[in-house]
Amino acid sequence: MARITLLTDFGTADAYTAAIKGVIASIAPDASIDDAGHELEPGAIMAAAWALRRFWRLYPAGTVHLVVVDPGVGSERRALAARADDRLFVAPDNGVLSHVAADAAAFDCVAIENQAYLRAHRSATFHGRDVFAPAAAHLACGVELDRLGPPVDNPLLLLWPEPARAAQGADGEVVHVDRFGNLTSNIPADWVTDQDLVWIGDRVIGPLRRAYSDVEPGELVALIGSEDFVEVAARDGNAAAELEAGRGTAVRTRRGSLSL
Amino acid sequence: MARITLLTDFGTADAYTAAIKGVIASIAPDASIDDAGHELEPGAIMAAAWALRRFWRLYPAGTVHLVVVDPGVGSERRALAARADDRLFVAPDNGVLSHVAADAAAFDCVAIENQAYLRAHRSATFHGRDVFAPAAAHLACGVELDRLGPPVDNPLLLLWPEPARAAQGADGEVVHVDRFGNLTSNIPADWVTDQDLVWIGDRVIGPLRRAYSDVEPGELVALIGSEDFVEVAARDGNAAAELEAGRGTAVRTRRGSLSL
Amino acid sequence: MARITLLTDFGTADAYTAAIKGVIASIAPDASIDDAGHELEPGAIMAAAWALRRFWRLYPAGTVHLVVVDPGVGSERRALAARADDRLFVAPDNGVLSHVAADAAAFDCVAIENQAYLRAHRSATFHGRDVFAPAAAHLACGVELDRLGPPVDNPLLLLWPEPARAAQGADGEVVHVDRFGNLTSNIPADWVTDQDLVWIGDRVIGPLRRAYSDVEPGELVALIGSEDFVEVAARDGNAAAELEAGRGTAVRTRRGSLSL
Repeated sequence: MARITLLTDFGTADAYTAAIKGVIASIAPDASIDDAGHELEPGAIMAAAWALRRFWRLYPAGTVHLVVVDPGVGSERRALAARADDRLFVAPDNGVLSHVAADAAAFDCVAIENQAYLRAHRSATFHGRDVFAPAAAHLACGVELDRLGPPVDNPLLLLWPEPARAAQGADGEVVHVDRFGNLTSNIPADWVTDQDLVWIGDRVIGPLRRAYSDVEPGELVALIGSEDFVEVAARDGNAAAELEAGRGTAVRTRRGSLSL
Repeated sequence: MARITLLTDFGTADAYTAAIKGVIASIAPDASIDDAGHELEPGAIMAAAWALRRFWRLYPAGTVHLVVVDPGVGSERRALAARADDRLFVAPDNGVLSHVAADAAAFDCVAIENQAYLRAHRSATFHGRDVFAPAAAHLACGVELDRLGPPVDNPLLLLWPEPARAAQGADGEVVHVDRFGNLTSNIPADWVTDQDLVWIGDRVIGPLRRAYSDVEPGELVALIGSEDFVEVAARDGNAAAELEAGRGTAVRTRRGSLSL
Repeated sequence: MARITLLTDFGTADAYTAAIKGVIASIAPDASIDDAGHELEPGAIMAAAWALRRFWRLYPAGTVHLVVVDPGVGSERRALAARADDRLFVAPDNGVLSHVAADAAAFDCVAIENQAYLRAHRSATFHGRDVFAPAAAHLACGVELDRLGPPVDNPLLLLWPEPARAAQGADGEVVHVDRFGNLTSNIPADWVTDQDLVWIGDRVIGPLRRAYSDVEPGELVALIGSEDFVEVAARDGNAAAELEAGRGTAVRTRRGSLSL
């Protein structure tokens, strides 16, 4: 059974996502559709890229991942179909596939242009329904990627700010804040050691712990998050709110000393 | 494989929707269930009708669309099952099927009364679980519509305010505000031309554009939305918030002149 | 076809739930996954237990109910797999299964410890993906419960405060507030009669009614909710907001008199 995941910023109150599912159901009635999430902030391209990074490879080969976070709908931005490590993708060419392209062993993409695989009447405001959904459904039915359109060798890639090696540590920043207020940084797990102290801005959080439960409820804690980056959280609390921190806030690690 | 869509105002924190799905799974275990959306405002009948309009016909013939936005639960309002252009519907008789009935070539409905297709113990507060879910599941299993109860020839229809033709244009109003703050009017696309200017209240937005990207980020734009009505949006912004506009705000179009 | 339901406090913006679904899809590709709800308040164990109570038994025998509300992730709290009246469960040992254990005719559980059924690399912050999802998927594939680990005879049970019999009535409290602001108490339906008056705090709501529609729009109403407990609501309104009531607010019933 073919499987399609659907990640959008549409919310669910307006049923845009149901329109997308209806188009898929009409073309690929046997495909199952998994909601990956629809509550992304409107137009949050980098949050979508990060969310997609979290799950695309956990799905089996052959899965079609459909991403519709598309503030540029109706402009000249291309519509992409892609293959990465045997998973398939359909998304606007605006950077949402950046992490996939960076993390995959192989990444190929095409511009969706073949009219045979699109809806005949296309609006200028809802390509999720008119372009991306039919393309994803046809891929799920076994249509070959290169049937959808010509190769693209310069997809838009919007990568994170790079962390920097520092004397006895690393300088990075917060790149994602999740629902719990946990602050994910761009400092990878293999850049740090158990002897490191972690700062958010000018505030020291403490040494790297293993789990939230290594501190008391309400306390701040630094640890390695589930995607293997340094993360700062508040046990049973909201670190982002407590620290007034968010995307771009400096995160630093230093070996065995309290001073920066 | 039978397919049921589910549109409600239940949110998902209380698992009312899971109760509905469980009832369906017990009666029609092979049916697939698509969440169409659960974040409608509580009791928002017209928003539900508009949401349903967006997707019902995109699904293949035979699909059962289940709508539970039911502020009148437990009152004398009827429970309806309907057929429109080969799609099936289950919903309270409160207007949520109004757009479907208006747009379909054929529309028939019955009152769900046959006890054989309902749960034996029925609460007065949750007919989604006790009445609508079992009816939808039985329809998905192939039970004929007229087995559910007697025909209804006067379902409650709550249509939009009608737009009016004006000298050199049209007078309408906002009928829906979506998650992005886009303002959908009741003025159909075929009432306007490229030479028309669009007003919200007393503020001129400008001529009709083709796409959001035809203006600069943050600017207001008037265009034809994905359901083929005149829409006012703010590129990468929220027009409803910026204009302090909402359902009922006047929308007007006039040919080639800045004055109303 | 095996069926798994998924109840979490992850929201959907961060795609944690998609990671869980991807793990399931890779192990049990033919299982269908029903979203039971992801908008629980972060760490709301008792709300999760109540939500689960609402639907677990409505699903057919063999269904696997997966609950990931897990503020203690990474601590010494156990991971449980359970069987209750032929439905299966996977959840942290933190009380989310309390209502199921109390309501089921038979309840057995084990600690998930068999490495063969877990992901090889386990984070300390996301057992939904690394422990619970694979365990649920293997159960859906037919793995026997006792293959997952040793029996547990003392799962953590966090039951509601007990209501008390009073002279001519009952003393209870609000145990859940739903999306509509409806206030569910712990006073069971069979403790009250049509002659009873219902109080919230020191405010009399009135006699028990049958349905919301038995009062005028905006008015407060006391009735028996869909789970057969005394409930206070505001017709077409929000009783919790209007009464400034919430979990723990006193609810009392008294026979045929306005005075407490």
